[in-house]
Amino acid sequence: MYIILVYDIDQKRVGKMLKLCRRYLNWIQNSVFEGELTEVKLKELLLKAKEIIDPSYDSIIIFSSRQEKWLDKQVVGLEKNNLDNMF
Amino acid sequence: MYIILVYDIDQKRVGKMLKLCRRYLNWIQNSVFEGELTEVKLKELLLKAKEIIDPSYDSIIIFSSRQEKWLDKQVVGLEKNNLDNMF
Repeated sequence: MYIILVYDIDQKRVGKMLKLCRRYLNWIQNSVFEGELTEVKLKELLLKAKEIIDPSYDSIIIFSSRQEKWLDKQVVGLEKNNLDNMF
Repeated sequence: MYIILVYDIDQKRVGKMLKLCRRYLNWIQNSVFEGELTEVKLKELLLKAKEIIDPSYDSIIIFSSRQEKWLDKQVVGLEKNNLDNMF
């Protein structure tokens, strides 16, 4: 599945969440990630995420599409993940 | 088209951008919006956005899908737009 994940997490917990998401997905903007994941891997990621977040303050939204070709992406302004791709 | 829009905009300009996006889409998280837009309306939104942003600092990413049913959405933790829906 093709995944877009966006989160809004309190600063106290955001570092852990960033690290977790980068292990599964590509960082493309501030709190936005995308990438191909199997359903099993997505479940694994969400289980780990639930251990990090405080569900009464933090929020994670996951959009998934069975095929990447069903989604078009357009960037206006800066492509913030350029640096990310170098590592 | 079904649109997901995420932005990362400097605080000086973010208020204007928020106001603009809310005229076209539903706010669902911090800097994330979704909704159905025609191609013409999306172009209109992006033209206006380009007048607001500084393309050397700010970034907008737009994912679009021809059909909403091609996209699944899952929320973990708080649904931050609950309040938004009331107005």
